[in-house]
Amino acid sequence: MGAHPYAPAELDLPGYVPLQLSQLEILGVYLGTSVFVLLSVWLVSGRIRRLSKADRLLMCWWAFTGLTHLLIEGPFVFTPDFFSKNSPNFFDEVWKEYSKGDSRYVARDTATVTVEGITAVLEGPASLLAVYAIASGKSYSHILQFTVCLGQLYGCLVYFITAYLDGFNFWASPFYFWAYFIGANSSWVVIPTLIAARSWKRICAAIHQSEKVKTK
Amino acid sequence: MGAHPYAPAELDLPGYVPLQLSQLEILGVYLGTSVFVLLSVWLVSGRIRRLSKADRLLMCWWAFTGLTHLLIEGPFVFTPDFFSKNSPNFFDEVWKEYSKGDSRYVARDTATVTVEGITAVLEGPASLLAVYAIASGKSYSHILQFTVCLGQLYGCLVYFITAYLDGFNFWASPFYFWAYFIGANSSWVVIPTLIAARSWKRICAAIHQSEKVKTK
Repeated sequence: MGAHPYAPAELDLPGYVPLQLSQLEILGVYLGTSVFVLLSVWLVSGRIRRLSKADRLLMCWWAFTGLTHLLIEGPFVFTPDFFSKNSPNFFDEVWKEYSKGDSRYVARDTATVTVEGITAVLEGPASLLAVYAIASGKSYSHILQFTVCLGQLYGCLVYFITAYLDGFNFWASPFYFWAYFIGANSSWVVIPTLIAARSWKRICAAIHQSEKVKTK
Repeated sequence: MGAHPYAPAELDLPGYVPLQLSQLEILGVYLGTSVFVLLSVWLVSGRIRRLSKADRLLMCWWAFTGLTHLLIEGPFVFTPDFFSKNSPNFFDEVWKEYSKGDSRYVARDTATVTVEGITAVLEGPASLLAVYAIASGKSYSHILQFTVCLGQLYGCLVYFITAYLDGFNFWASPFYFWAYFIGANSSWVVIPTLIAARSWKRICAAIHQSEKVKTK
């Protein structure tokens, strides 16, 4: 066993600084902040009369996922030495904890960094733009949401397929496999699929309608 | 130098069988077949009166790119031993030639195989479906084309970013860098960008129109 809690044990992490926060502290801050964001967007969006409940729920999701992309995944991308910092901040600790479910993060695997980079730099801002687009009833709202969903789904595909091709042995135990590698990522498979399907239908209906108008 | 024409020279390719076709033969067959496909789709689509010239050009592109994804990229994905086969077929030779511009193909780099796998299995059939959707004026035609374009663009992003992060030293010479790594891929950056922008505008216009109808 190496001097780190990750799998495979032969993974070499020179200068690894052990976790200082507990799983409960890390999850507590992330989930607590997330609930605060979700509730805030829900309450504030309630003051815009035009918005349906579905629109408001979508705004909550886009705010949550956009901030996660920017504030959680962003620091990972731009902090290559996060696991060896002597005074780790909260975000360094998040990724040291998550790496128990996928050590490619702490090992700085190329495909993982690439997908996280695209997610943080492109999909983060685009998600926040979706909050604004829904709130102000922009006509690009559906195609923008659809775009970000496809990006998230493509990213998940690359994430899972590369893990499979590279040996599928990056979790410290079955618990971390199910809780982190599968559990934490499943929302970004299920919810983008639902939103993309909804926007696809809405767009097809609008195109169908506009073609009927044209041929009249 | 190893017993292969790829870079970096220290790349180990046990059982590598040298190229038997010339660059001219490989490019000639690929480009010749492509011109045949493009001309066929152009001429056949000309018999459908409803189609604009833009529609017919798009059908040509989707037929060409769909067949390239399925018939060229597909065999790469499902032939891990293509570089060591004693009786290589045309498709094995294509990838041995292309690897001069990016040795990650012959080295079976995980991210490269993953992107090619998604491209061949999902985007190949979807591109051919786009030919049919345009020909028969389906209302999902625009969102389908947009979806495939985003997939192609995300794939190119992963392809180029992983090459950069992994050292950017996979071409046998500047000629192969420009001709294969940049040149051969540039169509799949430029054309999907143009088609995605066109579909985005068309979709926004349709949504805008349908919302005006609703509020009347």
